[in-house]
Amino acid sequence: MKFIDIANPGVRQLSPYQAGKPIEELERELGISSIVKLASNENPFGFPESAKQAISRQLDNLTRYPDANGFELKQTIAQKFGLKPEQITLGNGSNDLLEITAHTFLNANDEVIFSQYTFIVYPLVSQAINAKAVVVPAKDYGHDLNGFLAAISEKTKVIYLANPNNPTGTFLTAEQIEAFLAQVPANILVILDEAYTEFTSVHERVPSFNLLQKYQNLVVCRTLSKAYGLAGLRIGYMVSSPEVADLCNRVRQPFNCNSLALAAAVAVVNDDAFIEKVADNNRQGLRQLETFFQQKGLQYIPSKGNFITLDLKQPAALIYQKLLENGVIVRPIVGYGLPNHLRISIGLPEENQRFIDALSLILGL
Amino acid sequence: MKFIDIANPGVRQLSPYQAGKPIEELERELGISSIVKLASNENPFGFPESAKQAISRQLDNLTRYPDANGFELKQTIAQKFGLKPEQITLGNGSNDLLEITAHTFLNANDEVIFSQYTFIVYPLVSQAINAKAVVVPAKDYGHDLNGFLAAISEKTKVIYLANPNNPTGTFLTAEQIEAFLAQVPANILVILDEAYTEFTSVHERVPSFNLLQKYQNLVVCRTLSKAYGLAGLRIGYMVSSPEVADLCNRVRQPFNCNSLALAAAVAVVNDDAFIEKVADNNRQGLRQLETFFQQKGLQYIPSKGNFITLDLKQPAALIYQKLLENGVIVRPIVGYGLPNHLRISIGLPEENQRFIDALSLILGL
Repeated sequence: MKFIDIANPGVRQLSPYQAGKPIEELERELGISSIVKLASNENPFGFPESAKQAISRQLDNLTRYPDANGFELKQTIAQKFGLKPEQITLGNGSNDLLEITAHTFLNANDEVIFSQYTFIVYPLVSQAINAKAVVVPAKDYGHDLNGFLAAISEKTKVIYLANPNNPTGTFLTAEQIEAFLAQVPANILVILDEAYTEFTSVHERVPSFNLLQKYQNLVVCRTLSKAYGLAGLRIGYMVSSPEVADLCNRVRQPFNCNSLALAAAVAVVNDDAFIEKVADNNRQGLRQLETFFQQKGLQYIPSKGNFITLDLKQPAALIYQKLLENGVIVRPIVGYGLPNHLRISIGLPEENQRFIDALSLILGL
Repeated sequence: MKFIDIANPGVRQLSPYQAGKPIEELERELGISSIVKLASNENPFGFPESAKQAISRQLDNLTRYPDANGFELKQTIAQKFGLKPEQITLGNGSNDLLEITAHTFLNANDEVIFSQYTFIVYPLVSQAINAKAVVVPAKDYGHDLNGFLAAISEKTKVIYLANPNNPTGTFLTAEQIEAFLAQVPANILVILDEAYTEFTSVHERVPSFNLLQKYQNLVVCRTLSKAYGLAGLRIGYMVSSPEVADLCNRVRQPFNCNSLALAAAVAVVNDDAFIEKVADNNRQGLRQLETFFQQKGLQYIPSKGNFITLDLKQPAALIYQKLLENGVIVRPIVGYGLPNHLRISIGLPEENQRFIDALSLILGL
């Protein structure tokens, strides 16, 4: 008897998520040190001081379960963004929130719509449930919203939009998103994943929370793993109508968010100075890499995120491997159907330079 | 349009888990301080020093994602208990593991079996998936394994055993469990939830990991939230056949375990001195409460856990409320179908005494 035969049908074909290679793993494998990791769109600035202080105050409390309702963090987020606490669902990172919404609403009879070349967790959570994934071909590596509208059927239950999109960095404007929402039937949930929104400039940022009043089927997903620098702690939040939040909170594991993540998040949500510094550094780093690519005639996808995706015009696997040997970890995205591309997270100026030097060496530029 | 109408059928009837009342919440509500919480089977000793050191070494790393494979913790657990790393699935607390197994194997056509008066997360995860719950009436507040065998049908996919059982503290011996496993068909998963096993004495403890070789359908679930004192950090582990672990790891969220939980767990899994101290304190605390109950003629269920359940022979809600007003938080278990009972977690001797004094005052003993 094989246990895979009694696993759920969707699980039988499921391949686990491939994470960026951890620094320790490369150390173990190649015995090298002084490694630069530009593979997981992490914050290069180190853990925010405000969060560090918030954590240290909680250390003696860790034998206690976390607050299952995340009272203080919901209050903080609500106050910061002019929301009501009952609109909020807290997640163990935004991955958890994507899974919670899927388990709340999706079953094997439903269809979900997402773009080609978008965050791989959308197909993974849909596949696990055996919902039918309808993939809209990308337009210039980004979302083709007319294609989305054409793909809607009677069975569509959830639409995923990533904005900025990972792994390509493409961006939908506020006008495009609102025009789209106006045409989506009200019984289809639109999950707008804004994991990278803090890296966009204030004047172009989509005022997604303002759209919630008008579009009850809109669900906005945010993470504190990127700009806020809390990836290792795991925390994200989702904003929706109170009714959708109530349903998702029934499915949410009661202690999905750990005490230190909750405490750190309360501190950094109001740490505007940190976010500003992070966004500034990111803009400079993007320019640093773009300038290099332009000077060397390398093709890239313009990005609004904290990463940039390079088209090597040849299979990227070998170059990825050579970068590893030079102590530089970037992200192959062959799993996204982009075998010639590499995604490079924006690091500190000297980290970006390590990548530039290593790639120049490898390609003989 | 109501979103509950498009939620999954199981979710529509789902009531969220009721956590033990947090100390801060009681402070907010009643404006009292000096509160004793004996409500969530938490470790009263404070966070283990070994874990504190492990965490402080990780603080600068928190902008990085956790190791998605939990390499070091799996190695540590495997070495400690004579297992292979590929038998292990790591969870964001054991609640996460119960959910992962459910999502991996259960669907709406399946039946699950568990006992009356057992951990409420088994019905919750089954209900969310809309699997049919078959509840075996309890025998002396514990598992009636003959009743379980009689309840098995062609549709049974998962059996949950909690040992010691929460919230009643009842216990199945190694002989009972092995005799049971010998009679369960090999295609039914038996999830043995040993959240409280560290509180049992070494000579009576079930050698569950040794049974895995013979019973491929056995899955052993452990948490570090109880004896190990890491409830606030969220970490648990599950040991099974490599095949079951592989399937569960496909469904597991890649970064379900945060970096500090992983680091702290590596430290405490080998902190035998801490666990011994915790178990000793627990035995003394159990005796302290049992002696009080016996002296006052109060009825209780003998317990092998770090809690004890008292039968008040009258609705417990009012007494629970009066205990709160006296600054003592215990756990009402009306949600378990036990409206006359209260579950009291074992605390430090002075915390137990606070409960004894408050209850004596309320009942006029």
